[in-house]
Amino acid sequence: MLQGLIVSIDAMGGDDAPAIVVDGIEHFLKTIGKGRKARFILHGDEAQITPLLKKCPETSSRIEIRHTELAIGMDDKPSQALRRGKGSSMWNAIQSVKDGEANIVVSAGNTGALMAMSMMILKRKQGVQRPAIAASWPGPDGMCVVLDVGANIDCNAAQLTEFAVLGEAYYRALYHVEQPRVALLNVGTEDLKGNDVVKAAHERLNESQLGLNYIGYVEGGDISMGGAEVIVTDGFTGNIALKTAEGTAKLIGTYFKEAMQGSLWSKFTTYLNAMALRRLKKKIDPRNANGGVFLGLNGIVIKSHGGTDKVGFSNALNIAIGLAESDFLEKIDDTLTALHDEDDNIGFIQ
Amino acid sequence: MLQGLIVSIDAMGGDDAPAIVVDGIEHFLKTIGKGRKARFILHGDEAQITPLLKKCPETSSRIEIRHTELAIGMDDKPSQALRRGKGSSMWNAIQSVKDGEANIVVSAGNTGALMAMSMMILKRKQGVQRPAIAASWPGPDGMCVVLDVGANIDCNAAQLTEFAVLGEAYYRALYHVEQPRVALLNVGTEDLKGNDVVKAAHERLNESQLGLNYIGYVEGGDISMGGAEVIVTDGFTGNIALKTAEGTAKLIGTYFKEAMQGSLWSKFTTYLNAMALRRLKKKIDPRNANGGVFLGLNGIVIKSHGGTDKVGFSNALNIAIGLAESDFLEKIDDTLTALHDEDDNIGFIQ
Repeated sequence: MLQGLIVSIDAMGGDDAPAIVVDGIEHFLKTIGKGRKARFILHGDEAQITPLLKKCPETSSRIEIRHTELAIGMDDKPSQALRRGKGSSMWNAIQSVKDGEANIVVSAGNTGALMAMSMMILKRKQGVQRPAIAASWPGPDGMCVVLDVGANIDCNAAQLTEFAVLGEAYYRALYHVEQPRVALLNVGTEDLKGNDVVKAAHERLNESQLGLNYIGYVEGGDISMGGAEVIVTDGFTGNIALKTAEGTAKLIGTYFKEAMQGSLWSKFTTYLNAMALRRLKKKIDPRNANGGVFLGLNGIVIKSHGGTDKVGFSNALNIAIGLAESDFLEKIDDTLTALHDEDDNIGFIQ
Repeated sequence: MLQGLIVSIDAMGGDDAPAIVVDGIEHFLKTIGKGRKARFILHGDEAQITPLLKKCPETSSRIEIRHTELAIGMDDKPSQALRRGKGSSMWNAIQSVKDGEANIVVSAGNTGALMAMSMMILKRKQGVQRPAIAASWPGPDGMCVVLDVGANIDCNAAQLTEFAVLGEAYYRALYHVEQPRVALLNVGTEDLKGNDVVKAAHERLNESQLGLNYIGYVEGGDISMGGAEVIVTDGFTGNIALKTAEGTAKLIGTYFKEAMQGSLWSKFTTYLNAMALRRLKKKIDPRNANGGVFLGLNGIVIKSHGGTDKVGFSNALNIAIGLAESDFLEKIDDTLTALHDEDDNIGFIQ
């Protein structure tokens, strides 16, 4: 059996699995993960995985393959996946964490199926109504985390306050910032703005004595402009905000390419500018923010984009290992208990 | 009295009013509005407006000033504005349309106050539950319109279907596209995605025989990537999506500036690249998309960004005149009647 920090991986999840998974591990071990002690359990089809290892020497020495031929399709419904998914690469990857043989799970597979299976196998943490998906987004001075970005279409105020607590602990664990600013996403910053759910969560967080650095409301523009480190919203709004930001970055990329192709002159100067542009491209590269995290379960599940490449998958592994090395899971139990004790004391019920 | 197409303007609305308003008209008449026959009624403080006209010869010959000393503050609450706003520049600007002496109103003032006053003075169109604010956003092949972007925090399905009809007619009138694609903003494109309100509106629009080119759901990324011409959502989500897109564009602008300032080499080549970059900058210039439109009232009200400059205000004037010249207001009456007849026939009640 592998020793030390172990990452359990759904090797068959993702548009181009298992190639992207094996290449992603190799890329990680040769770049940002160089020198890290992590090892990997790969759940999936041995016949497909083994040939890929030939050109991946770093990976080969640090993995153990657990063969299964069953895989969840990218378009399978969560209910189908739950009924027929037992023994699949995704199921087994989660089960490894449940059984204590791995510290964390990573999958680039179907999000709905991964959430449904994670809830069934790992179960929600005591006191958590529903887990949330937290996504990272770059800003002018570092990353911010937005949650929920799609697990919960309708949320009540108690859920939003739980997301605030989960997101804050996650940010501290991953980015080592002691007092990240926590905010609620809203259509304005005045107290009277927003719908009833947001207003109730705002009041609850304002009254809280838990020591969160809650700064109140932020607007959509603050996601990219660094208005807060932890931005809390329901899964409907969060999903749309994140995809809107991605779409805008993509549009500007298209414009930029067009502008640069305009003339021979600009082609020449673009060549000269390559260094500066590479730096720019790296900053707005969506692969750098790859890796959504399911928060609120008895175990940590990392969801990589299904369409990512080895660089993106490698970034998801980096988040996974950073979290697995932290005390996130232990700390969050105490914080959730403190939150719900406070709920009881002030009679906050949703 | 002025003859022809008349635009009624709240000269005191906006962070830098009335200077930005007068300069905006002059800029419009010298650039995109060259040769247009429009004339302007300026409601505001004559003592502040008159000196500004000295360096604006085009404007001087096409305006009439209606003096008032009362102005609505950018931070006034809508309820305050309604109680104390009678006789203000904003109020009088709207009243000019109500009285039939102007075709359309433009204000860069306080959005909440402008909406409240517009509803009080112009009244909702028959059958419209609440007016919506429609905003334009650039895409790879032209503009798209998103509504509602902030007037209605909570919406029911009947409102979303009304927004679809209003937005479609608006797009046709402004951009002269016969069958713009209409879509609902959602967290995925499958029928079963989304909350109950979105699903009910989707079913209603799918069943409709009104001849809308309804294409179903689009996601956040489609706002910038040209997934539809008319994107319908509630005011909470729409406001956050639009501000998120603006924030992302701003962030990339910051990154771009940084990348370009990195070295002497890049400074030099940036100079050479100036032409291409000017084109790029023009494409992502938020001033080009300035001008939200209040739809669903007996009259058209254009809301310019409060912090815009003369170029942005000039673009708001361009939208105003384009709409005033169209048959939007007449056509929309028929379409709303047809929609509500269909509602009655199929028993659609919200």
